[in-house]
Amino acid sequence: MSITLGELAVRFGVALQGDPEVRVSRVASLEHADADAVAFLANPRWRRFLAGTRAGAVVLDPQYAAECPVPALLANNPYAVYARIAGLLHPPPVFEPGVDPGAVVDPRAQVDPSAHIGANAVVQAGARIGPRVAIGPGCVVMRDAEIGADTRLVANVTLCPGVRVGERCLLHPGAVIGADGFGFAPDREGLVKIPQIGSVRIGNDVEIGANTTVDRGAIEDTVIGDGVKLDNLVQIGHNVHIGPHTALAACSGVSGSTKIGARCMFGGQTGIAGHLTICDDVTVTGKSLVTGNIRKPGTYSGGLPIDETARFRKNAARFHQLDELARQLLGLIRSLRNGQS
Amino acid sequence: MSITLGELAVRFGVALQGDPEVRVSRVASLEHADADAVAFLANPRWRRFLAGTRAGAVVLDPQYAAECPVPALLANNPYAVYARIAGLLHPPPVFEPGVDPGAVVDPRAQVDPSAHIGANAVVQAGARIGPRVAIGPGCVVMRDAEIGADTRLVANVTLCPGVRVGERCLLHPGAVIGADGFGFAPDREGLVKIPQIGSVRIGNDVEIGANTTVDRGAIEDTVIGDGVKLDNLVQIGHNVHIGPHTALAACSGVSGSTKIGARCMFGGQTGIAGHLTICDDVTVTGKSLVTGNIRKPGTYSGGLPIDETARFRKNAARFHQLDELARQLLGLIRSLRNGQS
Amino acid sequence: MSITLGELAVRFGVALQGDPEVRVSRVASLEHADADAVAFLANPRWRRFLAGTRAGAVVLDPQYAAECPVPALLANNPYAVYARIAGLLHPPPVFEPGVDPGAVVDPRAQVDPSAHIGANAVVQAGARIGPRVAIGPGCVVMRDAEIGADTRLVANVTLCPGVRVGERCLLHPGAVIGADGFGFAPDREGLVKIPQIGSVRIGNDVEIGANTTVDRGAIEDTVIGDGVKLDNLVQIGHNVHIGPHTALAACSGVSGSTKIGARCMFGGQTGIAGHLTICDDVTVTGKSLVTGNIRKPGTYSGGLPIDETARFRKNAARFHQLDELARQLLGLIRSLRNGQS
Repeated sequence: MSITLGELAVRFGVALQGDPEVRVSRVASLEHADADAVAFLANPRWRRFLAGTRAGAVVLDPQYAAECPVPALLANNPYAVYARIAGLLHPPPVFEPGVDPGAVVDPRAQVDPSAHIGANAVVQAGARIGPRVAIGPGCVVMRDAEIGADTRLVANVTLCPGVRVGERCLLHPGAVIGADGFGFAPDREGLVKIPQIGSVRIGNDVEIGANTTVDRGAIEDTVIGDGVKLDNLVQIGHNVHIGPHTALAACSGVSGSTKIGARCMFGGQTGIAGHLTICDDVTVTGKSLVTGNIRKPGTYSGGLPIDETARFRKNAARFHQLDELARQLLGLIRSLRNGQS
Repeated sequence: MSITLGELAVRFGVALQGDPEVRVSRVASLEHADADAVAFLANPRWRRFLAGTRAGAVVLDPQYAAECPVPALLANNPYAVYARIAGLLHPPPVFEPGVDPGAVVDPRAQVDPSAHIGANAVVQAGARIGPRVAIGPGCVVMRDAEIGADTRLVANVTLCPGVRVGERCLLHPGAVIGADGFGFAPDREGLVKIPQIGSVRIGNDVEIGANTTVDRGAIEDTVIGDGVKLDNLVQIGHNVHIGPHTALAACSGVSGSTKIGARCMFGGQTGIAGHLTICDDVTVTGKSLVTGNIRKPGTYSGGLPIDETARFRKNAARFHQLDELARQLLGLIRSLRNGQS
Repeated sequence: MSITLGELAVRFGVALQGDPEVRVSRVASLEHADADAVAFLANPRWRRFLAGTRAGAVVLDPQYAAECPVPALLANNPYAVYARIAGLLHPPPVFEPGVDPGAVVDPRAQVDPSAHIGANAVVQAGARIGPRVAIGPGCVVMRDAEIGADTRLVANVTLCPGVRVGERCLLHPGAVIGADGFGFAPDREGLVKIPQIGSVRIGNDVEIGANTTVDRGAIEDTVIGDGVKLDNLVQIGHNVHIGPHTALAACSGVSGSTKIGARCMFGGQTGIAGHLTICDDVTVTGKSLVTGNIRKPGTYSGGLPIDETARFRKNAARFHQLDELARQLLGLIRSLRNGQS
């Protein structure tokens, strides 16, 4: 599709600087865009490409309007406006209704006639597949799982029994929702399995990354709120609750029974211990370890950056003496004060 | 099914306080249980729910018996007894023997007639599938792989050629057993692949989490002992040996050729370097890095908890000066001692 | 196959010490090899097995030749020569050309007649599958994806739309190439998805581990250079570029838009922040966090090793006071100097 800048300005409620009849049909980067593409400037890092851009239009903050050599869409949140324009020009694929002959759908499943079931997908008895749902090739929807309208499972996704996924969700390949939580009771004979009889409830507008795993609850459900975004290779333990619009970057893990608030952001490889409560509006930078409740919104960190190996090792060795060094320092200060007083 | 408290007490060898004729049919949490459910109290954290519980019975330590307002099953290890009761009331699913018409089973595979092969599963030539094995939808069992009695591959699991899995194992969706180990020899032209000609041997009663990977050995086998439990997204490198009843929580990784003892527990995101030996009965808390042998049973840690970002960054900057600071401190102490002596 | 030591010496350009007519047919470890096996000694750790070996021949550095009780192939890089011999004696499997009847191949896909498409694999419209490619069971090759000659997708691999994979690549089970990058613009209503319209380009001779994920670019492509090796459970973010012959060990993650040079090596669980540049020939040890550009080749570290928990906790508590302690120390030194001068 192609659209005029005038229509874009009206549709997304932003001011236009330049010719409203210019047409664009796609998005591109500031550096490589040509005349039929919309680019954006959100991060000042890329401002050096603004003067030379050949884009059909640039979405940017009004403060940069004077520097823009081409038409500009002026937005206070240029990244979000760009996202919406990109979503309009590059809409998600539409799938033909119907069941691929290679799919295996149990006759006791309820599949909306507008849903698409791809090649070699499996839908078991009792599953309920809503309107316009797309279940891609190789996906497995186990018994009694439910999928809300307009949700897409891209490929090779597994929904375990009884899992419920909301509307307009996007589950990337290899995601596994509802495998057993990791619950064992140690006794003399080893580790006795605790049956995991809860399930998983996923809200609306949730995106779940490739090969990410969300475990079913031990007794009650694991709950993923509306608008949550999980990156690839994320692990969500049993009985975790994640509040709306929270995002976890790749390789993060949340241990069992932790409750995370709304609008939190977690950097990659973050680890969150079990049975914690984390309030709304918390940001945690990458590779952090969270071992206690967080009661105050704000930004938290815990990842130690690299150094040259030889230097790092010396410092790490001192780390292991740190308490002793601190005692020596504090003892010295005390004795000097006493001696001087 | 439903069962009386009297039968439960006899079957699991625990004392009953209350009416032996009360029947229960499921488990539930102390907080939400109703009269046909058994709850448990293992963690003192939940003791506040005991007085108000409406459970049919509670499994708990004799020290809390007097506080329990409903019948009580008195156990020294209430969590393990609860686990066994839950396993009785919520048994794993039973699968119909036979091969789903959508499955592809090579005629040169040996499949026990009591085994279940699900829709769109693939079983290659030479594979041997034992009695009552359940191979779920989308699983791939490659040539010459062997699966012992009563083992279940839930869905989309991959067993690579020649892998052997024991009895009563449970492999969650997306697990990959027997992919090539990461072995390359650097030379002038790049990284030369070392063929990975060993395999993987998995014992009995092993549970392997969703999207977990266990690599085949370079020459000899990777070995997972009886009763080992691996959580989701765990990586086990080539030629690793894991002793019986050891558990690794999610996102942990064990590098090649490391030998881990029996009954160890590793928290999530733990990393264990290669070619190490870790003795029995070691516990390592989450996000730790193990770079040397562990010869003494005990509990080890290595994950630095978060702080507010501004404070964390100041401390991290000092970490990178730590050896120099320590030298200054120790030099100062020395010179003061010399001056004072 | 079996081959004489004389032929091996000629083929791989190394000196032979011993009888050139001895035949070998496989590789084995120094400790367990018998007379028809070639072993190797690359790591001095295993030197203790040399005197007792029963191997048909040992590949080793000339400095150990005198200690070798059996024929020896003398090489300056014994590990790489061993790798090549092992590759000759244990060649990768060959697949029959043709499409398994259980596979679903769209008639609008181009599949070379010499390619193999396994049971329950799916190849969508517009895909192009080169000569001698092997697509294993359960793999999904989505529309317009391209696969170069002699590449193998082992099983349950997903290639998303438009992804391009080079020649002689090996993709292990569960790998997902080309899922959407993690791009969202926060605004008042939550996180607005940025359509990910770039793709992934993978060079030749690349190996990608089990359940590893490589995201498609936001606008332009994610690029994996020739000869790159990614271990299992690795995450490569959108628009990352990885230079030739670089290797990342398991559970590592690279955030969006980072550019990594050639011949780098990253230990397991390493995390690399976004928008960085890392030069050629950098080694980073396991569990490191890279938050800034690396401009100098060398070895870098950032993972703090474990200690006994009680001791570790004391030191970690002091870490959180480190800046204050350093200030006290430096203040003390300053005041003593002033007092003494």
